[in-house]
Amino acid sequence: MKHLLSIADLERAELEDVLVLSEDFLQITERDIPKVPALRGKVVVSLFYEDSTRTRISFETAAKRLSCDVMSFSVGSSSVNKGEGLRDTVQTIAAMGIDAVAVRHPAAGAPARVAEWIDASIINAGDGSHEHPTQALLDLLTLRRSRGPDLTGLRVGIVGDIVNSRVARSLVLALDKVGASTTLVAPPTLLPPVMDGWPATVSNDLDEVLPELDALYLLRIQRERQSADRLPRLSEYTTRWGLTVERAARLKPDTLVMHPGPMNRGVEIAAEVAEGPASLITEQVTNGVAVRMAVLYTLLGSGARVA
Amino acid sequence: MKHLLSIADLERAELEDVLVLSEDFLQITERDIPKVPALRGKVVVSLFYEDSTRTRISFETAAKRLSCDVMSFSVGSSSVNKGEGLRDTVQTIAAMGIDAVAVRHPAAGAPARVAEWIDASIINAGDGSHEHPTQALLDLLTLRRSRGPDLTGLRVGIVGDIVNSRVARSLVLALDKVGASTTLVAPPTLLPPVMDGWPATVSNDLDEVLPELDALYLLRIQRERQSADRLPRLSEYTTRWGLTVERAARLKPDTLVMHPGPMNRGVEIAAEVAEGPASLITEQVTNGVAVRMAVLYTLLGSGARVA
Amino acid sequence: MKHLLSIADLERAELEDVLVLSEDFLQITERDIPKVPALRGKVVVSLFYEDSTRTRISFETAAKRLSCDVMSFSVGSSSVNKGEGLRDTVQTIAAMGIDAVAVRHPAAGAPARVAEWIDASIINAGDGSHEHPTQALLDLLTLRRSRGPDLTGLRVGIVGDIVNSRVARSLVLALDKVGASTTLVAPPTLLPPVMDGWPATVSNDLDEVLPELDALYLLRIQRERQSADRLPRLSEYTTRWGLTVERAARLKPDTLVMHPGPMNRGVEIAAEVAEGPASLITEQVTNGVAVRMAVLYTLLGSGARVA
Repeated sequence: MKHLLSIADLERAELEDVLVLSEDFLQITERDIPKVPALRGKVVVSLFYEDSTRTRISFETAAKRLSCDVMSFSVGSSSVNKGEGLRDTVQTIAAMGIDAVAVRHPAAGAPARVAEWIDASIINAGDGSHEHPTQALLDLLTLRRSRGPDLTGLRVGIVGDIVNSRVARSLVLALDKVGASTTLVAPPTLLPPVMDGWPATVSNDLDEVLPELDALYLLRIQRERQSADRLPRLSEYTTRWGLTVERAARLKPDTLVMHPGPMNRGVEIAAEVAEGPASLITEQVTNGVAVRMAVLYTLLGSGARVA
Repeated sequence: MKHLLSIADLERAELEDVLVLSEDFLQITERDIPKVPALRGKVVVSLFYEDSTRTRISFETAAKRLSCDVMSFSVGSSSVNKGEGLRDTVQTIAAMGIDAVAVRHPAAGAPARVAEWIDASIINAGDGSHEHPTQALLDLLTLRRSRGPDLTGLRVGIVGDIVNSRVARSLVLALDKVGASTTLVAPPTLLPPVMDGWPATVSNDLDEVLPELDALYLLRIQRERQSADRLPRLSEYTTRWGLTVERAARLKPDTLVMHPGPMNRGVEIAAEVAEGPASLITEQVTNGVAVRMAVLYTLLGSGARVA
Repeated sequence: MKHLLSIADLERAELEDVLVLSEDFLQITERDIPKVPALRGKVVVSLFYEDSTRTRISFETAAKRLSCDVMSFSVGSSSVNKGEGLRDTVQTIAAMGIDAVAVRHPAAGAPARVAEWIDASIINAGDGSHEHPTQALLDLLTLRRSRGPDLTGLRVGIVGDIVNSRVARSLVLALDKVGASTTLVAPPTLLPPVMDGWPATVSNDLDEVLPELDALYLLRIQRERQSADRLPRLSEYTTRWGLTVERAARLKPDTLVMHPGPMNRGVEIAAEVAEGPASLITEQVTNGVAVRMAVLYTLLGSGARVA
């Protein structure tokens, strides 16, 4: 593996290798000194054309725990948005001598273009409504740590703005690769018009799907889409597709609840449910650092065992 | 000690232990390589909801000198102000695995709330008009290095916008704990309406108080308070409460002059006085790094002696 | 050498020592772990009052490769532009204990003032239209790596907004010191009204100069100067002073093409030429890190050989 651009590119074995390695790194992060010299001197750049503190900090924390040097470029704090094109920016960064770039960009495919232009390893940290592969990997790791390494036959519901969600797209592909099955639940306006390439079933009725799920994954509702007439009123959304306390009571007792964050408490998920015993939302954040360590180590490491 | 939330919480012995440790760290910072591996691998976060480059950089420098990894969150550069609440932000950061957070927030009590929500050590880096405990500790360290470890009976005047000043509040409490006495000097509109909880005497007349002081501490005048009719015209303020060259000449020869910065030269302090031999303003900044090293080491260290 | 404020200050031998050392550091940056402990524990600050991601990141990468701790101050992200003067800002930074500051400032002479105020080593990272000495050093390094260490008699053309260009000023001085000769080419409105202090010849006609050049250096056209009536229309500029494909074909076969970046492709340089075999633009960026390592090591190092 030279790059991580999409879940679609990964063989099932590659995906599972990253997850196994992530479990090793999780153990390292629980040590008193949660740091290994594995990638000392490697330079990792976070290049974020969209604001996402959580994802950026998760990558940077992962890189520092591997003893990398980290360079942080955000649109707001650099000249990346002052007329210099993406290509010149990444070629300049590359010429300074770097090993990997985590790229977040509003345009689908931008990380793949970057991978054509420069020699470093590129990690897609979210590109438009295309993919967000490290999010899907951390979600699988989270499921695996609750349910064991074999996720075959696991039934997962993903609820929310499916059509615009790179999180949903990567997760559906990842669940399919490990043998789990996905039902996408959303108002018709938030579903893709054609479901080609989405190995999932579809429903508009959360209450019907609810009792069968092993895991329920809520997507963040982007309030700004309301004005575009794509989204019902928030209160109506919550009534029909939100994980309210009442609805959570109708889940099977062991159904897992997940959310990529940041949450709109009271909209797509009730605060009580987010904090409740079924929720793995905090574990997802913790697992994100371990997964990103595993990805960086896979792309940049020597192949030797982690210390 | 798990957190440093306020001077009010500290026992006198705890406070003095931090000061003694700070003197050790001051010596380390004068070495050719001013860095110790004491807290290697610990992750320290600066979470600043108000802009304060000096305090933030002081904390970050202190953490780096202890070999911590540092994560920097400022409101302007992150999603902290984009609808995600303080609680979700700190819980997310905490889930990534961190050891301490220095919190600056406009709301009094915010750091204490953060300490309830997450498991890391919390340092109050200034909360509204409540407290700024590391500032008070560095001020005591500065006095102690000029006057020796026993500050009993030292007479300190604090001049300026007392009612809104977390610096004043923390410093008054700290001086009281070590046996020094404080006189607060300000126009009536800038004094607290009730002096309960302020172990200090009060005056509106700087010239009367001046000749008795061992140390004179000028607070920064916030020009924006003028419009609120709380502050006299700046020229009038300077005439009556500013440390002008003429007024400085009436101080005792060994009276120390201090200011937490940044200064309004020519308003609360004349440039000549700020640069003069009685001024400890530069030493305060230097001591700030050592005090913050001592606080981090006290909260996160193993208890072993510093290398 | 305590500071690097201008090329004008350097003896030829000092300048050549930095270049020789830069070649050593270039080799280090090609190692698998491109990092040396040479300046471990030294604190380097980048203090940028103008946005320049490339130059800032180049300095910070150089410092990290020498194992320095790096503090980054940019105007947008700090209180440097909130009424605190440059002097107070740098004195505060200095009091925290730092070793070197790379200063970028819109006012000519600002770094020299900073060098008077504080004890740290100051590197001019670009001051107004005065100088940008590390850019000139990296340009010389780039020429030297193509043409060998003796640049005597080399003929260099610099084309563009000469009068406002600190890059041009530093480069002309540097080329003169090593025995190369410079021709400045620009529309009359973009040339200095008096050429005193510029050891160079002048031309308004690029096509006349073109066939004699060993290296052609294009400056970035600042589009915002158009409104000030200093600049012809962009299309006219390109026609008469741009390095188009047609014009590049009339260069000698071994003429080198350089640009300090960021480029306006299609304005001062055609995209095909920028990417072509004569272009050293990427090498300039790579060499910039090595030169800044050499400068930091010269200013802060013990004088011992690099590991």
